[in-house]
Amino acid sequence: MSFKRQNNYRGLVTSVIFFLFCFCVNSATKLPNFILLNLDDVGWGDFGVHGNPARETPRIDQMVSEGMDMTSFYTAAPLCSPSRAAMLSGRLPIRNGLYSDNAFGRNAYTPQDIVGGIASSEILLQELLRKGGYHTKLIGKWHLGHRAPYHPLKRGFNEWYGAPNVHFQYDGTTAPNIPVYKDQNMIGRFYEGIAINLTTNTTNLIAGISEYTQHLGEEALEYISRRGRTGKPFFLYWNPDSTHAPSYASARFRGRSQRGTAYGDALIEVDDIVGKMLDLLVNHKLENDTLVVLTSDNGAALVSKREAGTNAPFLCGKQTTFEGGFRTPAFFWWPNKIPAGNASSQVGTQMDLFATFLDLAGLPMPRDRVYDSISLKPALMNGDLDLEKVVFFYRGNGLFAVRKGRFKMHLWTWRTPQEELKRGIDYCPNIHMDGIVSATQVNHTAEPILFDVDNDPEERYPIRPGNSPTIYETAVGYLKKVVEKHQQDLVPGKPALNYCDPAVENWAPPGCEDLDDCLPIPASKVVICDWPH
Amino acid sequence: MSFKRQNNYRGLVTSVIFFLFCFCVNSATKLPNFILLNLDDVGWGDFGVHGNPARETPRIDQMVSEGMDMTSFYTAAPLCSPSRAAMLSGRLPIRNGLYSDNAFGRNAYTPQDIVGGIASSEILLQELLRKGGYHTKLIGKWHLGHRAPYHPLKRGFNEWYGAPNVHFQYDGTTAPNIPVYKDQNMIGRFYEGIAINLTTNTTNLIAGISEYTQHLGEEALEYISRRGRTGKPFFLYWNPDSTHAPSYASARFRGRSQRGTAYGDALIEVDDIVGKMLDLLVNHKLENDTLVVLTSDNGAALVSKREAGTNAPFLCGKQTTFEGGFRTPAFFWWPNKIPAGNASSQVGTQMDLFATFLDLAGLPMPRDRVYDSISLKPALMNGDLDLEKVVFFYRGNGLFAVRKGRFKMHLWTWRTPQEELKRGIDYCPNIHMDGIVSATQVNHTAEPILFDVDNDPEERYPIRPGNSPTIYETAVGYLKKVVEKHQQDLVPGKPALNYCDPAVENWAPPGCEDLDDCLPIPASKVVICDWPH
Repeated sequence: MSFKRQNNYRGLVTSVIFFLFCFCVNSATKLPNFILLNLDDVGWGDFGVHGNPARETPRIDQMVSEGMDMTSFYTAAPLCSPSRAAMLSGRLPIRNGLYSDNAFGRNAYTPQDIVGGIASSEILLQELLRKGGYHTKLIGKWHLGHRAPYHPLKRGFNEWYGAPNVHFQYDGTTAPNIPVYKDQNMIGRFYEGIAINLTTNTTNLIAGISEYTQHLGEEALEYISRRGRTGKPFFLYWNPDSTHAPSYASARFRGRSQRGTAYGDALIEVDDIVGKMLDLLVNHKLENDTLVVLTSDNGAALVSKREAGTNAPFLCGKQTTFEGGFRTPAFFWWPNKIPAGNASSQVGTQMDLFATFLDLAGLPMPRDRVYDSISLKPALMNGDLDLEKVVFFYRGNGLFAVRKGRFKMHLWTWRTPQEELKRGIDYCPNIHMDGIVSATQVNHTAEPILFDVDNDPEERYPIRPGNSPTIYETAVGYLKKVVEKHQQDLVPGKPALNYCDPAVENWAPPGCEDLDDCLPIPASKVVICDWPH
Repeated sequence: MSFKRQNNYRGLVTSVIFFLFCFCVNSATKLPNFILLNLDDVGWGDFGVHGNPARETPRIDQMVSEGMDMTSFYTAAPLCSPSRAAMLSGRLPIRNGLYSDNAFGRNAYTPQDIVGGIASSEILLQELLRKGGYHTKLIGKWHLGHRAPYHPLKRGFNEWYGAPNVHFQYDGTTAPNIPVYKDQNMIGRFYEGIAINLTTNTTNLIAGISEYTQHLGEEALEYISRRGRTGKPFFLYWNPDSTHAPSYASARFRGRSQRGTAYGDALIEVDDIVGKMLDLLVNHKLENDTLVVLTSDNGAALVSKREAGTNAPFLCGKQTTFEGGFRTPAFFWWPNKIPAGNASSQVGTQMDLFATFLDLAGLPMPRDRVYDSISLKPALMNGDLDLEKVVFFYRGNGLFAVRKGRFKMHLWTWRTPQEELKRGIDYCPNIHMDGIVSATQVNHTAEPILFDVDNDPEERYPIRPGNSPTIYETAVGYLKKVVEKHQQDLVPGKPALNYCDPAVENWAPPGCEDLDDCLPIPASKVVICDWPH
C-alpha cells in the first residue's frame, strides 16, 4: 500500500512536473506573432469604418469589427521616413536622429541622394524581437536609409523583399531608378524590370511572375504559412507603397474602385490582401497567437488632390502638425485576446507599438536611453486608460504642438511655404484660418493656440484666453509644463538628414553585377540638403 | 383503395387550402411596422460608424452593423421644415409648397409667426398608411405648421406627443413659449412647466414625471409595446429635438459625452434610447416585422460652432446646398430581411422613404401628381441599384445643384450672406473657395461647377472644362438635360411660407383653458416674412 502510495505520489509529482513543463513550453510557443501593416499616405477617413462614403475597405472594416479601433492614435512625424524610424525605435525623430536642422521646422526624409539613415546606435524593434527568439521579415518599403550600413538585413530583419526608397521615376542617367531587393541583393529596378506604367497606373514584376503589390501580398502569405508552421514566433512588417503617389494597382483592381482613381484602386487592392492575410491566419489556426496592427505612416497627402486619400474629419494633411498630418488609423486584431468590436480612447502613438510588442513578448525595454513609448497592453486587453500619455507634434526639429488628455496646444503653426503655394502645392486645400493655417511659420509661444480635440477634433474653434479664461489658463498651464520638462530633458540625436550627395544614389546596389545593372557612380559632391516642406 | 386515395386527395386539397389560408393570414399580419427615427441637425460624421473619433453612438453603430448604411443619401432641403414636409409627402418642397419665394434661394421654415403649413392638398405618408390599416403616431417635433389646420392629428396621425415648433426660448409676452401637445391638446410649454435650463442644459417634464427626451423615449417604448401586442401594423415617426440648438440632455447624460458639450450629451441620450427601442423590438419578437430607419433632417448646424455636430467629410453645413447641408445618415435595420453589415451606394433621398414604405406595405402610390420618390426596396432587399436616380438640391425656391450618378453640378452656390458673416454666422466655417463658397449668391449656369462626388465627396476639386473637357462636357451635358426636363415639367406648389403674423403664434393653443395658460392674442398684422438664409 505504502509503496503504491509512493508510486501514486511519484505519479502526481511527475504529472505536476509534466504539467509545469507543458505550461512552460506552451508559454514559450504562445509568444504572439506580430504583423504590423503600415500603409503609405492612407488617411484616417479612407476606411469604411471611419466613414468613407465609398465604403470600399470591407476586409479592413471587418478586421476592425473583430478587433479594436484606437481613435486617438498618432504618428511621430507627418511624413514617411521619420515616422517609420520612430515606430521602429520607440523614440521621437528628434532623439533618434531621423531629422534635419538645416532650417527650423522643415520635414526631411530619405530621398536617394541622402547620405544618412537610421543611426547604428538606435536599437530597433525587430533587433530586440529577433534576439528574443523571433524570426523577422520586412516586406515593402524601408525608407530609413538605402546605403550599405542601413540595409534592413543589417538592422534586425532575417528577410526583406522590397524597395529602400519611394517609387518615384528617374531617368536612369541623372539619377538611377529605385532598386527592389530580395534579401541582400537587388533583383531589379522600378520602371525597368519592375514596371510601373504611369499611364495605366498598373505594374508588373520582373519576368512577369506577378504584379508588384500582388507579390508583396504573396510574400506575406508565404511567410505567414512558412513561419506559422514552425510554431516559433515571427514579426512581419508589411509596407506596401502603392497608395503613395504616383499610385498604382495591379491590373485586376484597375478602375474597380468606386472612387475611380489610381489611389482608390491601390487601396482596394491593399484591402483585399489584408483580408487574405487574416483569412490565412484563421485557416492556419494562428489567429489566437497573432496580433495584427494596421496603421499608416502619416496623413493623406492632400497635395495630390483628387489622387489623394482623405483625412476627414481632420484639418490639413501630410507635412503638417494639424490632426490631418498626425492622426492615423490604429486597428488592432487579436481574436479572443483583444475584445471584438471596441473602440478605445487611449491616446497613443506608433512609438507605443515598440513597448507594446516587447511587453507582449515578455522582453524588457532597454534601460540606457529615453523612450517615447508606453505599452498599450492594458488598453488593448483590459480597457485601462493611461491618461498621462503625451503626444508631441514635431515638424523636423521644431516642436510645433503637444497633446495631453483632451487638449492640444500649438506653439507653432504652418501651412505650406508661399513659394510652394504658388506652384499649386498645398497641404491644407480650401482651408482659411488666419494666422493658424498660414504660408509663413507662426510662433504662438507667447499665447499658444488651444484646441479641445475631443470636442473639436477638426481644430475649427480655438479656445481663446478671453473666451474661456479658466479652461485656457489651466490647460495651457499644464501643457507648458509638459513642454518645459520635455525640452529640459531632451538630448537631441545627431541629425541624420542634413547632407545630400549624388554619389550615394542607387547607382550600383549589391547584386547589380549579376543583373548587369550597375550604373557608373558620379563624383561625390556633398551638399546641404534643401528641405522646403 | 380508391376510396382511400380519394380521402388522401381530399386531405391534400384541405392541406393546400389550409396552407393558402395560413399564408394569406400570415401575409396580412406580416405587413411590416415602420419606425422612422428622424434626428435633428445631426451630421453625417457624428456617428462612430461614420468615423467620429469620439465613437459614442454604440447603439446606433450596432444598428448599422446589423443593417444597411446607404451612404449617398440626401435630405430634400438643408433645413428642418421643408426637409420634413418632403419626407412625408414624397415631393420636393418646390412642389409641396413648403418654401417661400419672397426672395430667390432663401431657406424658409415654420417659426411660430408663420401663417402657413403643409397644404391640405398634399397626401402625407401617414395618411396613406393609416388608410391601409396602419396605426400611426408622431412623437416629438412636427414643424409643418402649428395652426389648427396643420395639427398632426388632422394629418394622419392617431396619436401625437411633442411640440409643433423648435424649442427656442421666448419671454411669454412679446412671443409665447412653444407648447407641448399630447394628442389634441397642449399639456404645457417649454421653459415653463416643461423646463429647459439653459445654464445646465437639462430638462424636466411637467410635474417632474420625467425629463423631456426621456419621455419621448418612454412614449416610443410604450407605443411599440402596446401596438406590437395587437399584431396590427404601426408607423412610429420619432423626432427628438434635443440635438437642435439650444441642445439639452436629461440629467444622467449631462457631462457624460466625451465631446463634453450639451450637443454631445444630447446625442448619447438619443443613442441610448434608440438602443432601447431595438432591444424592445427583439424582446417582443417584432424585429423581423419592423423596418427601422434612422436619418437626420439636415446637415449639422455648423453655425453653432463647438455646440454643433459634424458633417465630416462633407463641405459646409445646414442651410447650404453643398454635401454638408444635404448628405444625411440613412441606416436601415430589419433583421433577416435586410442583409446585415452592408453598405449600399444607391443614391437616394428621404423622399424615397415615401414610395419605399408604401411598396413594403403593398399600398399603391397616388397617381394624380408628380412624385420625387422611388422605392428603395430593390436596393435594400436585393442590392439592386437604380442608377437613374436624380437628386435636386434646392435652397428655397432656387434650384442650386443636381446629382446623378457620380457627378454633382452646381448651378448656383452660396455660403452665408455678408451681413450674417459679420455677425459671426457662418455655414462654412474656415472654408475658402473663391466664387464657390461665397457671401453672395453666384450664378454658375453658364459654366456650372462640376464635382465627382464619388471620387471627391468633400467637393474640393471642381472638374474644370479646361482640365477634363470630355468628362466635363459629357457630365454637364446630361445633367443640364436632367435640369431642363425637371424645369419644363415642374408645376411649383403655392408657397406656404411667404407670410408671417404675430397673431398666429402659440398664444392660445387647444387645451390652454384647462391649464389656465391662454395668452391674449394680439391684433393680426400680416407681413412678408424675412428669410435671410
